[in-house]
Amino acid sequence: MPNIVIHHLQVGQGERIPWLLEELNIPYELKLYKRSPVFSPPELQAKHPMGASPLLEDFTFNPNKPVTLAESSAIAEYIIQKHGGGRLALPPSHENYADYLYWFHFANSNLQPTIFRRMTVRSLASSPDDPRYKLSDARMHRVLKHIDERVSSSTWLAGEEFTAADVLSVFSLTTMRKFEQINLGEYRGILGWLKRCTDREAYRTAMKKGDPEQNIEELISAEGPSKFGALAKPTKAK
Amino acid sequence: MPNIVIHHLQVGQGERIPWLLEELNIPYELKLYKRSPVFSPPELQAKHPMGASPLLEDFTFNPNKPVTLAESSAIAEYIIQKHGGGRLALPPSHENYADYLYWFHFANSNLQPTIFRRMTVRSLASSPDDPRYKLSDARMHRVLKHIDERVSSSTWLAGEEFTAADVLSVFSLTTMRKFEQINLGEYRGILGWLKRCTDREAYRTAMKKGDPEQNIEELISAEGPSKFGALAKPTKAK
Repeated sequence: MPNIVIHHLQVGQGERIPWLLEELNIPYELKLYKRSPVFSPPELQAKHPMGASPLLEDFTFNPNKPVTLAESSAIAEYIIQKHGGGRLALPPSHENYADYLYWFHFANSNLQPTIFRRMTVRSLASSPDDPRYKLSDARMHRVLKHIDERVSSSTWLAGEEFTAADVLSVFSLTTMRKFEQINLGEYRGILGWLKRCTDREAYRTAMKKGDPEQNIEELISAEGPSKFGALAKPTKAK
Repeated sequence: MPNIVIHHLQVGQGERIPWLLEELNIPYELKLYKRSPVFSPPELQAKHPMGASPLLEDFTFNPNKPVTLAESSAIAEYIIQKHGGGRLALPPSHENYADYLYWFHFANSNLQPTIFRRMTVRSLASSPDDPRYKLSDARMHRVLKHIDERVSSSTWLAGEEFTAADVLSVFSLTTMRKFEQINLGEYRGILGWLKRCTDREAYRTAMKKGDPEQNIEELISAEGPSKFGALAKPTKAK
């Protein structure tokens, strides 16, 4: 049995960790949970003080007391350094080290919170003309343009090497669009990069294992998924 | 002249980087900007596609073309690895490595977005009884309890060593309370930890240089700052 166990709340950010593990060719066991109806089910909630997904358990160093770790970026860094020999990260000596760090951290500290914020404001604002909605929408498009310019001028986020920065960022512009509708039609750079990322065998394998019901072609289309999650339904601003 | 220049929008998250540099005893030049009235002034906006603060410029490796880097966590990691000899990070071999990664990433991927989300929802909800406000408030208190339990059972976030995880987390529970009022009275663990952090000479020196008008005793009190920033004023839910 693999020493690494990943707990993954389906149709969610947890998809990134199996993808990373497939890229690194590291064996793992995947435990899947369904939303009930939106949030984590009680059995996953009970496993961590924050009820977090994804959640890593690593039995490698002590079969009786696994290392338990949440936060996708922390899990990614842990796996890369403890089990991946540093692959998919760029070392401090690399000329793109600063780019790597920037985009690696941007994924969860900026891109994902910015989309989540627009979703929050949209669900609360009385109309799409609300200046607060417009502000959150403008901020999101500034972020998208920033990414679009980057992946138009380089193959991957950190430069010419595929890295964990790509693995961490794709979710927000694919599966996340099941919760918050975003049309990417004006972002040709992003659409090309999403295609390059999701064409990778490791991504396809991970999605087949973790989220076999997802329609990948729809997730990477300009219009995005046609069916939305429960969080996206009760919007006022349309 | 120091090779490292930090651009810092005052009364904001940029305070963490001078603090880190003081802890590591690395020389730097600090360029200060005032909010106008809430957001970044145009001259800082112009320096980065996202108008980000803090912003690092590092002239060490090329005096004509500095490394330019935004995202507080990325800047922190860059400084630690390129100039700090790895100090204030825990290496993969350390028994608290997973704890370090968790809390380092938690700061900007969870704690700060969670408080920001409550601020956003509060400003939009029609009353504090709105179930969406209650949800964002409950989420925030779950995060605070999580931190409180951690720093009640260990001296610092990563364990018995002070690390960059502490440096990145303090802002959200001190200066951030100028934008979103949070009473920490029930979190004795957090209050003790804030005292330990802000008693450090490096923190005091950095605040004196970057935000001399801040009243630190007020920032770390249970009630928090008595004067709020412009973002906090136009609330409906009181």
